[in-house]
Amino acid sequence: MSSDLASQLSLDHGGTILLAVMDGVGDIPIPEFGGLTPLEKARTPNLDKLASAGALGQHLPVGRGITPGSGPGHLSIFGYDPVKYLVGRGALAALGIDFKLQHGDLAARINFCTLDSDGIVLDRRAGRISTELCIELVAALKPISIPGVEVFVEPVKEHRACVIFRGQGLSEGIHDTDPGLVGEKPLEITASAPGAELAVEAVSEFVRKASLILKDKSPANGLLLRGFALHEDFPTLTDLFKLNPAAVALYPMYRGVASLAGMEQYSSEPADLDGEVQAAKKALMDGRDFVFLHHKYTDSSGEDGDHKRKVAEIEKFDRAVPGLLDCGFDVICITGDHSTPCPMKLHSWHPVPVLIHGGPQRTGWSGRFTEREAAAGALGTFNGDELMPLMLAAAGRLAKFGA
Amino acid sequence: MSSDLASQLSLDHGGTILLAVMDGVGDIPIPEFGGLTPLEKARTPNLDKLASAGALGQHLPVGRGITPGSGPGHLSIFGYDPVKYLVGRGALAALGIDFKLQHGDLAARINFCTLDSDGIVLDRRAGRISTELCIELVAALKPISIPGVEVFVEPVKEHRACVIFRGQGLSEGIHDTDPGLVGEKPLEITASAPGAELAVEAVSEFVRKASLILKDKSPANGLLLRGFALHEDFPTLTDLFKLNPAAVALYPMYRGVASLAGMEQYSSEPADLDGEVQAAKKALMDGRDFVFLHHKYTDSSGEDGDHKRKVAEIEKFDRAVPGLLDCGFDVICITGDHSTPCPMKLHSWHPVPVLIHGGPQRTGWSGRFTEREAAAGALGTFNGDELMPLMLAAAGRLAKFGA
Repeated sequence: MSSDLASQLSLDHGGTILLAVMDGVGDIPIPEFGGLTPLEKARTPNLDKLASAGALGQHLPVGRGITPGSGPGHLSIFGYDPVKYLVGRGALAALGIDFKLQHGDLAARINFCTLDSDGIVLDRRAGRISTELCIELVAALKPISIPGVEVFVEPVKEHRACVIFRGQGLSEGIHDTDPGLVGEKPLEITASAPGAELAVEAVSEFVRKASLILKDKSPANGLLLRGFALHEDFPTLTDLFKLNPAAVALYPMYRGVASLAGMEQYSSEPADLDGEVQAAKKALMDGRDFVFLHHKYTDSSGEDGDHKRKVAEIEKFDRAVPGLLDCGFDVICITGDHSTPCPMKLHSWHPVPVLIHGGPQRTGWSGRFTEREAAAGALGTFNGDELMPLMLAAAGRLAKFGA
Repeated sequence: MSSDLASQLSLDHGGTILLAVMDGVGDIPIPEFGGLTPLEKARTPNLDKLASAGALGQHLPVGRGITPGSGPGHLSIFGYDPVKYLVGRGALAALGIDFKLQHGDLAARINFCTLDSDGIVLDRRAGRISTELCIELVAALKPISIPGVEVFVEPVKEHRACVIFRGQGLSEGIHDTDPGLVGEKPLEITASAPGAELAVEAVSEFVRKASLILKDKSPANGLLLRGFALHEDFPTLTDLFKLNPAAVALYPMYRGVASLAGMEQYSSEPADLDGEVQAAKKALMDGRDFVFLHHKYTDSSGEDGDHKRKVAEIEKFDRAVPGLLDCGFDVICITGDHSTPCPMKLHSWHPVPVLIHGGPQRTGWSGRFTEREAAAGALGTFNGDELMPLMLAAAGRLAKFGA
């Protein structure tokens, strides 16, 4: 409700905002750290200063006890109701490679795989073929045509590609063909919901033709499809909050979700945190008033259960903080899209620490950017999609409600 | 939702409640006070005692990041969903002078102004004419009649008056005629939304006739209209919570919003905080079971950015606390309708401290009535319209929900 109201009240002028996301930053106590979390264990002099000069709180990306995927986690902190705006993995994959999805497009992820002579899956990733080979295979599939449906095949990375079907009456109610393990055949194309006849027919035809083209290649002689997602028109941050937004993210998935929100992509040279800070600065100088910056490796280290590496990634981010401050944004928000506790090696439902620096705040309540201080911070505990109203308010971009 | 349920469960008997509002009381750290807020800086021995013997919390008048006007801020703490019950300024102005608005009435604020011979605005307030002259001008306009629509013109104060149109099919979809600055003509009457034809016609006819009447007067020879608001039936606190409510407020705006909630107005002699305490006592003795008392000057000093005066106004309120306790209410709630941080000189979105004294409470958690103690108080953080259920519960005026 707060974000709907914020949409109505949003102004097309005011301060500039940087939303810096340490992916999966929230954690739980690590026994090897004597019960400290990675945020508590890390040496973060720059974040500490920011915490005391700003205000802390914690957000619930989707709801109490709900573990979000990366899509809902990010959409929520961009100000979208993550339940209303659920986006399938296939669509995110396509958006992540800058494919311009249109309303009604059906997208799916492709894994090139290795099949034996009986068509049984030997390797679901065909030995992680090179991206070059992936591009070659995709080129071989591009000529496939299906009556009444336009087909686009695009390479992603290594064994991963994606396919987009464009036509009337498509549906995402289709089961994955990936059996999820070796020793079985790819699954038949079947509907998972009523009304998917047309889509089942088009996808089956595509798979039939693609299988014929691939069957004599090596090591990738087959393909698996998953994450069917129908793309529907999506309001951008310009539509919703009158922002002129940009994104700085190294990974296709996050570029995809940012692109869905209408953010212009800025690429990082070099492709690391320093490059990202420079890209954020460039976006600001270009007149962008909202920049999303994504730091991936706090999440990857959490998923690997590597708490020491997670600490190192937090400290690396901390060293980037002075550069972020130097960019000159009026408001800087630092948070995560979800928690990824190292002991779980998975995304989790735990609240995510938030720090807002800039604008009128109840400062001086917190001394460090940690789970515990965030839970007692001046901003309190709130839903992920209430973060956008808080950032807009701090930047003076929301009108007063009512007389 | 909590207030809807409270409405269903409310009893027509139980304890009496005083809701004392220090308008705009919430603040942020003031550098000149070494980072203390006005509430933290003020000497408030009486509030301190109340805080320790009661329970603290903080409310969000409308939502995270949303800055409320005075209307939504008050309606929320009276137990109304402030988004559902949004009231226009014109209606509040009419209600503030005790005009009995009916369902479907269209109200607008009038500014008497000075025009030059070409009809250009020289002074939007006609030099702030005296209230006596305002009454005189209004008397000259009262005879205006419009076919099919009843018109009421009422003086407010100085250059301010209001006009109410009563008839079938009126709409509030009309733009202000106030150009907002001098050197321009008053704007034509135009629709801001479809379906306003009838209203545009009636208002145009009124302005035409009023302009003829005023044109040879001095210094006020014209009028500007703004804040068109259609009044719709509004449930009272009697309808919603079986209360017999009264209001003690010095300013028309707050009398207006109280009157909307069905509160009987009690006037204060003298027109200051002491007079207000006496009026609250009289209301209680008259059998009122819910009294709203409004202290304006914490907000005005905040809007002036005068943190020292805000401290003085808080201390003045503190000195009134023993008198409020002597009245004999069973439950006393002290809060604000929103925050007005001195450094901002504006209403803000920051949560507002709440103190409830009386009834069974988790007492002894707090030692002072401050933003920081409120955020850590026993009542927690809640939406403004959840305050009424908490007050009713403290007063034993809510039945159990379910078997």
